Amino acid sequence: MKRYFFKPGTKINLADWDPNETAEFDGGKNASKNALEKLNQELEPLQELLYAEHKHKVLVILQGMDTSGKDGVIRHVFEGVNPQGVRVASFKVPTPIELAHDYLWRVHQQTPGNGEMVIFNRSHYEDVLVVRVHELVPKSVWQKRYRQINEFERILADEGTLILKFYLHIDLDEQKRRLQARLDDSQKQWKFSVGDLKERQFWPQYTRAYEEALTRTNTSWAPWVIVPANRKWYRNLVIGTILVKALQSLKMKLPAFDGDPKEITIE
Amino acid sequence: MKRYFFKPGTKINLADWDPNETAEFDGGKNASKNALEKLNQELEPLQELLYAEHKHKVLVILQGMDTSGKDGVIRHVFEGVNPQGVRVASFKVPTPIELAHDYLWRVHQQTPGNGEMVIFNRSHYEDVLVVRVHELVPKSVWQKRYRQINEFERILADEGTLILKFYLHIDLDEQKRRLQARLDDSQKQWKFSVGDLKERQFWPQYTRAYEEALTRTNTSWAPWVIVPANRKWYRNLVIGTILVKALQSLKMKLPAFDGDPKEITIE
Repeated sequence: MKRYFFKPGTKINLADWDPNETAEFDGGKNASKNALEKLNQELEPLQELLYAEHKHKVLVILQGMDTSGKDGVIRHVFEGVNPQGVRVASFKVPTPIELAHDYLWRVHQQTPGNGEMVIFNRSHYEDVLVVRVHELVPKSVWQKRYRQINEFERILADEGTLILKFYLHIDLDEQKRRLQARLDDSQKQWKFSVGDLKERQFWPQYTRAYEEALTRTNTSWAPWVIVPANRKWYRNLVIGTILVKALQSLKMKLPAFDGDPKEITIE
Repeated sequence: MKRYFFKPGTKINLADWDPNETAEFDGGKNASKNALEKLNQELEPLQELLYAEHKHKVLVILQGMDTSGKDGVIRHVFEGVNPQGVRVASFKVPTPIELAHDYLWRVHQQTPGNGEMVIFNRSHYEDVLVVRVHELVPKSVWQKRYRQINEFERILADEGTLILKFYLHIDLDEQKRRLQARLDDSQKQWKFSVGDLKERQFWPQYTRAYEEALTRTNTSWAPWVIVPANRKWYRNLVIGTILVKALQSLKMKLPAFDGDPKEITIE
């Protein structure tokens, strides 16, 4: 899966990244179900180990255009994980209290503690995406944020947080298909928002904003993964595989028992 | 499952409730796996409907002696539920900041919002349990709390919260077996705490405290369920069944689509 990472400093042009790619899995969609189930089964004990060891913190950041599949990743990749060990934080339009603070204030409140895995469904990256596209703050303000975000994430990493950032890469046609699918299915219509159509008109601006964010905030301590996400099954496999490997690389261990269990009598 | 509910005002004597009971399921432990999986599969779309409708709030409170299975319920009953729609709040020993506020302060911060399901792993009931047993506040203070808790829960219910409270009922022998099992299994030893042995000596006091809590806080708006919990599989079935029925009784509906989907063109 190394192909979906890139070196810090690399200038990203999303046109060079194929959202339809499925190069790392031969089996196709049907075979992917078993592969994903296997990943779910690997993830569960790793998460329990994370919780038991109470040493590392894990932060998974999901970003992508509307309909790119952030909710779907949470549902499918984290299915079967103990809800006690995973928390999802969704960052929507900021409240007045949140707006009265710096943009990282609400984010910091949601970062994981020891033994915890937190998934950000959107994140502080919106402060260099939607905020930039709609000019909610002047350029002089959002321009500083790439550096600030890198510094903020470095603090989290220094203090024991494994950070993985996934950009779910779909194209304009795929978004159209997904929006149309929501309209056509009475069970999915509630997910359709006219606001999504409005945002869709800003696709080129969002693409440029994402390219700059990916280029400037891809660090050794908080790397980005550009996930080909036109095929949902492939997107899930890529994220599940990278997550399992990253957790394995922590070489976690159960805490040693303090004393000799045989000497303890339960009355 | 009505047998595990009781009328408000009923004086509870836990010796009258059999923790080994499995009366509501004929199949035994092996057949229970399929039954639980079926419940998991029913729970998932109900939770999605809860989220989509964004109208009701759901609060599940889990209480019980150490090793009674609170963590196990979260793992097994809520397996497969979208982590985005379920949040677990664990209430441990209060921090200095929490202690500097009233005992419901930290609890209120964790109550569910519209469309959300929150599981309390322990709760404000500890403030009439451990706090009473160890006399952390004077009797004149904790005695008022039954009324306060009823009033607090009534506010939550009035404002749209479905509240279900489960007391996981095990006996002293079963706790011994479970503590011993933790000691005997190197994969489980990390869960063993010498503090649990100390608390075990207060079993009669905890029993009396639970009996009074169950007796005085069983209300029409926030009923208690006394779950026979010596058999883990049965405990999971009881809670899963009651939860699914309660969610079904909300008669939730997907939000109606505003306008005619056929008139919308995606460009």
